[in-house]
Amino acid sequence: MEVHIRKSRLQGVGLSPGDVGAPAKDAAPHAPPRMRVLGYGEDGCFELDTTNVNDALVRIGEKSVTWIQVIGISEISFIRELGQRMNIHPLALEDVATTWGRAKLQDYGGQLFVVGKSAIVDPADPPRLSIEQVSLVVGANYVVSFQETESTLFEPVESRILDPQRVIRKRNTGYLLYALLDMLVDHLLASIDAIEEDIIKLEDSILDGNCQLELSSIYRHKRAVIMLSRIAAPMQELAKRIETLDSDLVPDTLDYYFRDLADHATRAAERIEHARIVLQSLQEYYHIEGDHRNNDVMRVLTVIASIFIPMTFVVGVYGMNFNTSHAWNMPELNYPYGYPMVMGAMALYAVVMYVYFKRKKWI
Amino acid sequence: MEVHIRKSRLQGVGLSPGDVGAPAKDAAPHAPPRMRVLGYGEDGCFELDTTNVNDALVRIGEKSVTWIQVIGISEISFIRELGQRMNIHPLALEDVATTWGRAKLQDYGGQLFVVGKSAIVDPADPPRLSIEQVSLVVGANYVVSFQETESTLFEPVESRILDPQRVIRKRNTGYLLYALLDMLVDHLLASIDAIEEDIIKLEDSILDGNCQLELSSIYRHKRAVIMLSRIAAPMQELAKRIETLDSDLVPDTLDYYFRDLADHATRAAERIEHARIVLQSLQEYYHIEGDHRNNDVMRVLTVIASIFIPMTFVVGVYGMNFNTSHAWNMPELNYPYGYPMVMGAMALYAVVMYVYFKRKKWI
Amino acid sequence: MEVHIRKSRLQGVGLSPGDVGAPAKDAAPHAPPRMRVLGYGEDGCFELDTTNVNDALVRIGEKSVTWIQVIGISEISFIRELGQRMNIHPLALEDVATTWGRAKLQDYGGQLFVVGKSAIVDPADPPRLSIEQVSLVVGANYVVSFQETESTLFEPVESRILDPQRVIRKRNTGYLLYALLDMLVDHLLASIDAIEEDIIKLEDSILDGNCQLELSSIYRHKRAVIMLSRIAAPMQELAKRIETLDSDLVPDTLDYYFRDLADHATRAAERIEHARIVLQSLQEYYHIEGDHRNNDVMRVLTVIASIFIPMTFVVGVYGMNFNTSHAWNMPELNYPYGYPMVMGAMALYAVVMYVYFKRKKWI
Amino acid sequence: MEVHIRKSRLQGVGLSPGDVGAPAKDAAPHAPPRMRVLGYGEDGCFELDTTNVNDALVRIGEKSVTWIQVIGISEISFIRELGQRMNIHPLALEDVATTWGRAKLQDYGGQLFVVGKSAIVDPADPPRLSIEQVSLVVGANYVVSFQETESTLFEPVESRILDPQRVIRKRNTGYLLYALLDMLVDHLLASIDAIEEDIIKLEDSILDGNCQLELSSIYRHKRAVIMLSRIAAPMQELAKRIETLDSDLVPDTLDYYFRDLADHATRAAERIEHARIVLQSLQEYYHIEGDHRNNDVMRVLTVIASIFIPMTFVVGVYGMNFNTSHAWNMPELNYPYGYPMVMGAMALYAVVMYVYFKRKKWI
Amino acid sequence: MEVHIRKSRLQGVGLSPGDVGAPAKDAAPHAPPRMRVLGYGEDGCFELDTTNVNDALVRIGEKSVTWIQVIGISEISFIRELGQRMNIHPLALEDVATTWGRAKLQDYGGQLFVVGKSAIVDPADPPRLSIEQVSLVVGANYVVSFQETESTLFEPVESRILDPQRVIRKRNTGYLLYALLDMLVDHLLASIDAIEEDIIKLEDSILDGNCQLELSSIYRHKRAVIMLSRIAAPMQELAKRIETLDSDLVPDTLDYYFRDLADHATRAAERIEHARIVLQSLQEYYHIEGDHRNNDVMRVLTVIASIFIPMTFVVGVYGMNFNTSHAWNMPELNYPYGYPMVMGAMALYAVVMYVYFKRKKWI
Repeated sequence: MEVHIRKSRLQGVGLSPGDVGAPAKDAAPHAPPRMRVLGYGEDGCFELDTTNVNDALVRIGEKSVTWIQVIGISEISFIRELGQRMNIHPLALEDVATTWGRAKLQDYGGQLFVVGKSAIVDPADPPRLSIEQVSLVVGANYVVSFQETESTLFEPVESRILDPQRVIRKRNTGYLLYALLDMLVDHLLASIDAIEEDIIKLEDSILDGNCQLELSSIYRHKRAVIMLSRIAAPMQELAKRIETLDSDLVPDTLDYYFRDLADHATRAAERIEHARIVLQSLQEYYHIEGDHRNNDVMRVLTVIASIFIPMTFVVGVYGMNFNTSHAWNMPELNYPYGYPMVMGAMALYAVVMYVYFKRKKWI
Repeated sequence: MEVHIRKSRLQGVGLSPGDVGAPAKDAAPHAPPRMRVLGYGEDGCFELDTTNVNDALVRIGEKSVTWIQVIGISEISFIRELGQRMNIHPLALEDVATTWGRAKLQDYGGQLFVVGKSAIVDPADPPRLSIEQVSLVVGANYVVSFQETESTLFEPVESRILDPQRVIRKRNTGYLLYALLDMLVDHLLASIDAIEEDIIKLEDSILDGNCQLELSSIYRHKRAVIMLSRIAAPMQELAKRIETLDSDLVPDTLDYYFRDLADHATRAAERIEHARIVLQSLQEYYHIEGDHRNNDVMRVLTVIASIFIPMTFVVGVYGMNFNTSHAWNMPELNYPYGYPMVMGAMALYAVVMYVYFKRKKWI
Repeated sequence: MEVHIRKSRLQGVGLSPGDVGAPAKDAAPHAPPRMRVLGYGEDGCFELDTTNVNDALVRIGEKSVTWIQVIGISEISFIRELGQRMNIHPLALEDVATTWGRAKLQDYGGQLFVVGKSAIVDPADPPRLSIEQVSLVVGANYVVSFQETESTLFEPVESRILDPQRVIRKRNTGYLLYALLDMLVDHLLASIDAIEEDIIKLEDSILDGNCQLELSSIYRHKRAVIMLSRIAAPMQELAKRIETLDSDLVPDTLDYYFRDLADHATRAAERIEHARIVLQSLQEYYHIEGDHRNNDVMRVLTVIASIFIPMTFVVGVYGMNFNTSHAWNMPELNYPYGYPMVMGAMALYAVVMYVYFKRKKWI
Repeated sequence: MEVHIRKSRLQGVGLSPGDVGAPAKDAAPHAPPRMRVLGYGEDGCFELDTTNVNDALVRIGEKSVTWIQVIGISEISFIRELGQRMNIHPLALEDVATTWGRAKLQDYGGQLFVVGKSAIVDPADPPRLSIEQVSLVVGANYVVSFQETESTLFEPVESRILDPQRVIRKRNTGYLLYALLDMLVDHLLASIDAIEEDIIKLEDSILDGNCQLELSSIYRHKRAVIMLSRIAAPMQELAKRIETLDSDLVPDTLDYYFRDLADHATRAAERIEHARIVLQSLQEYYHIEGDHRNNDVMRVLTVIASIFIPMTFVVGVYGMNFNTSHAWNMPELNYPYGYPMVMGAMALYAVVMYVYFKRKKWI
Repeated sequence: MEVHIRKSRLQGVGLSPGDVGAPAKDAAPHAPPRMRVLGYGEDGCFELDTTNVNDALVRIGEKSVTWIQVIGISEISFIRELGQRMNIHPLALEDVATTWGRAKLQDYGGQLFVVGKSAIVDPADPPRLSIEQVSLVVGANYVVSFQETESTLFEPVESRILDPQRVIRKRNTGYLLYALLDMLVDHLLASIDAIEEDIIKLEDSILDGNCQLELSSIYRHKRAVIMLSRIAAPMQELAKRIETLDSDLVPDTLDYYFRDLADHATRAAERIEHARIVLQSLQEYYHIEGDHRNNDVMRVLTVIASIFIPMTFVVGVYGMNFNTSHAWNMPELNYPYGYPMVMGAMALYAVVMYVYFKRKKWI
């Protein structure tokens, strides 16, 4: 699985709070922001796609809950207008426009501001993992969600809203908040699933001894897991804080749901930590196993060299061209059994060394 | 010991809460769910095996405690029916049907919902370690337990119930909850026992220098220990939360029992952590010891090569075929004592090198 | 990026509290301290640059907020005079004069004393990272800031003050405190940005196999990250403490701002920790990958040596000069097919070894 | 120092609480349990050795404090009888009989149940470290202590009791509890002392370069330290809990003593952690130092081989037997200065290589 | 810097609380204890050096504060006498006499008992780091300090007391306690300074590639840092506990001072942790860099051996002495261009190998 991080860093230090920074230069040119408005209640629902802030806002209050999805956050003036019209706190607006934030909850009196993060697996080949940030502004009868790009992230929630039979129709904005955050955690769990499957494949491959290209794969998965771990812990904290929040927007009747959400986020955090530990173990295995194989290689080299290099020296001796007419110069060359004696001595040496290495368990 | 994880991942992201997901595709076809009902009290007990929800539920209340064991959770409609009939909260039902959860406790008013996890050693050859999840729904006069598969997990509790002499007969559902969780912790401790025994064998083998196949064994045991550690910590937390729970279902008179349970779970967690540390130490030992042996190998190679390669060069010199009729061309060849002089010089070199390496402690 | 730490250790142990230590011997000769005074309020603002303490202090109270920037803290007598005139606690003054402190908050009754730290990236080539400490004394209608050297650290705040349209004009000294600390955290985040970019470049380069000079680069970045981590955690703690501080200088209306500040500091701390983990992972990758390549090298050496060293021995044998007139001395030399037989035997050996190594996956 | 763990695992999963498990099969046949009874008060003391439960129990109350030492816990019926007679809670009795527990405190109304653990150094050659568990049942006028085997663990307390001058004579059972636990902590500290001394010896030996047999010694000490760390932390927790315990058995006047005990246990835990870190550091040193030495070995091999292997090739060239009557075949052999020229060229090569390696700091 | 630990372990296990143990056998024979008495107040001060307990004690109360420095704690009877006369709790006296304790605070009613620890750098060549323990007993109008040996530790405090202008003259015993503890923390910070300087030198040396003797230096510094870390954390805890202590001896007016002390101790702890992390990083760098250099060495060896060993085999072939009168025996020897052909083939081989290794980036 490839890991993909959508970058859009805020440019410039020293903006006053509430200033919505210009998007980073390296951000791809996003499509202009558009809004998808869903109003619903026990008495029915409506859908509306628009790019006009006013068109969207006038529909608030028509049904018991209005959900405004803002897709695309790169157009500053648009965000600023919407923020002013909906009375969103400048600090919240700053967080909407920056995508490198962490999950957070801020209760601005009548408005809850929530930042959630998730990871989405794009089933391409190879599959890609990308990090999504969703900002949510929750009021008494509206929820505004901000996403960077088009995605199918919230489609299941939409279809539940559109189905008159589903329980979500009868619930308030706090339940919608739960449903959207639950979706984020579900996607996080699905990403971990994908990574765990990859890890099992890596494990099988490495334990079988096929260590060719796996190290960078381990590294890439570790990288992904590190990134996910930065998402999971704040999400968990967020869910716990919502559960204990004293606000009319999240009534106590939703406590079971947010507790369940916190529980799922905890599970996600634990599985990520688990994946991290397994990958670390696997990397250690790979490392030590590699060293161990290398030792085998060295032993083969040493055994062969230790046996043959001295013997090559010996045969070199008898290849010298000293004048054998002098009695002291290599008289062995003229012995009738010189050759078999030398060969026998060398064979003996080879056998001794072989036994020695065998005893040392080098062969 | 082999480690075996029974997989059955929940399929699909975006189910509404309470939706019981379809079982994963790779889940083995389980047998249809069946129920084993045990009712007991001071006045006697009854047993019933059935697959019909109604047959089981009508028996609740007959004796002071009714324990319904549900074996097999793959049939969604069955779980859903039971859940509706017994008023189990949809979120709890969702947790029953997913087997990758973590130990948890949720007090739904008159009903306690508990998820426990354990590890069971199957005494095959080689023994296998598998992870079990048991969900428990505890009411005033009933306990429903959900298990994935047939197992002997709760047999000792059953036999204690069937024995009129045992104290369990006089106790309420809270005590049965304790007995079942205690069983899970006991199995966890037994699994750790098995792993600790394996570790001692590994240690003996590695410290004796038999490093052949042990690295992957260390890895597999680390893997098992990591998995167990994910079970033990939440079980410990669970036991502590039940102890301090303010619910009529778990009266204060059971506090000693749940405190003891928490203590055992802590012990389990500590022993797992201990096993993890020992395995890590052992792996480091294996690694460093391997490097150390390799150094011995390299030293042998270096000593032999450093002595014989230069000498082979020397004998090669005197094996050259320069025309010795020219006075400058290898006059040594015609010296009467050329050969002994060269051999002596080389012997001297060999001795010097030997002493040098001896001093450096390379031999 | 190069990392640069401005050193100026306090000399001498055993000063009584409040003693302002002499600057360290190795501190560069700083310019004499100067003050830049900005007074502002809804009714206008004034600027003043002076080196005379009295000139600065008489302006306090003229406008609703007076901000005195002290640039240069090396002249002890100056710091001491200012401290006495403004009633700064001796312990606070000691902290102003030492630059190796950590972020802290102390409420001295009517005066808040805050030490903040940041890291600034100097966009030289290569860019340099330097650590800055800023001490702040906050009263009802004044803020005194102490910096070691000239820097553009607070320029954006100055220009916001000078712009009559900006909200800062209407706010009190607590808001100015927020604005200055926010600037420090923004610079910290910008430093992390720079490091993260470097890490991505390092990653690309190492995963592509260009491992030449990267190890010391990894080390230098780890060093920088370790240093930043010492800054971020106390800044986070500081922001949280100000938020919960019960002081008239920081009214509850500023809570959102300081909470946001704490949130940004947390984000900084998390990103630093993340960078540390990634660098550690990268270093491990570099290490193991290096070992792995080395194993390839060793295998090539071993294969070639194992094939050719024994064969060189064989040809050495037939290069010996034994007197072949004796029947036992190398009769092979006179065989009509001696040469092809020997060459064939060696070719066979080479093929066998090649197949053997191929099977072992060494080639 | 050798490390010895006395094993006696509880057999069987699924005992009901209070069941005293049969001892493990591999437990050595212990001697039958015996009791040593010491009664004391300001008015005198008595001693009694018996194996009869009744004989011991009737003496309770005779003096202000009666201390019953039970030595040997392998005879289940004995433990069960004593437990029933003294009204010990079944869960406590279960803990008495299992020796793999952790330090714990349970207040059963009028009875305190305490499990303490220690490590004892047996001054054999080599000294052995063994783990001891002591269970204590504390009532208003009696203390029952359970030990697995005969040991001199509590001898100093006995002799203090027998000495009429000592303050212990005037104190109640809470003070005796303190005295016994203090003994356990003292033995723990003495064990750490022994390990620290061994570590200093190991350090000296390894830093001096004598790396022969030390790795397994490091491993064994790490193992011992890991084991001790499992003892110290719960003992510390135990002491703190007794200090804050609201029980008549441990009056507030003993608070200084139990605080001191907790302080000593903390010290023990810190020293163990310290020993662990030092051993880990030492192992890393051993590892890296070994690698470093190996690099020296490799450099020697490489330098020698790089100089002599090419030169051996050259002399091999001039040892070929080409027919020099053809003008193109090795005319050098007939040059009048062929030999000195070749030797000179090789000497030049050797010098160049030597300088090159010298520059690279390989020699 | 060398690290020196002054050892004097308490002998014997099982002393009753308050027993002052005999000093360890390996303790150097200390000088007999002496006392230095300083009385001071706003109305003047006096000095007295004595070895007589009575002489010292009668002076208490003469001035508002009397500070008795006890130097030398090896004479048990002396400590015991002083303890009884001053009503020091036996447990406190036990801690005075043992020098391996940890920083602690105990409020014995009208007396505070404080144990502080510090590290002192002795500016020898090489400088030595030694650990000091100071026990302090603080009453309403006296402070008794116990030190093992003569040292200049508290000289700055003495000279401040002797100077009538200094603020210490007007303060009570709580302030003296602060001044003494501040001195300990200052020495701790100075020790860290010295270590940090050493680390920077080590870093420069290792990053420049001079890896000769540095590994054991890294080890020794790690050892020192580990030791310091055991001092800093309890000192920090101690300062925080004094700040929040509810005792007349430490009035609230001193809170700023003890908070500042706690802050400095925190800074010390953070810098020690920082030093530990940097040393660990540096050791990893050293390790990996060493491996990397080794890989370079191996590559040189492999390239040279891979080129020349096969060629040496070839020339060996043509050095064989087969009888070339048989047509099949080395007819190449008689080819008119045999020699240039063979040499050309080998040159081609060498070039091919060179290009191959170049491509593989081995050269």
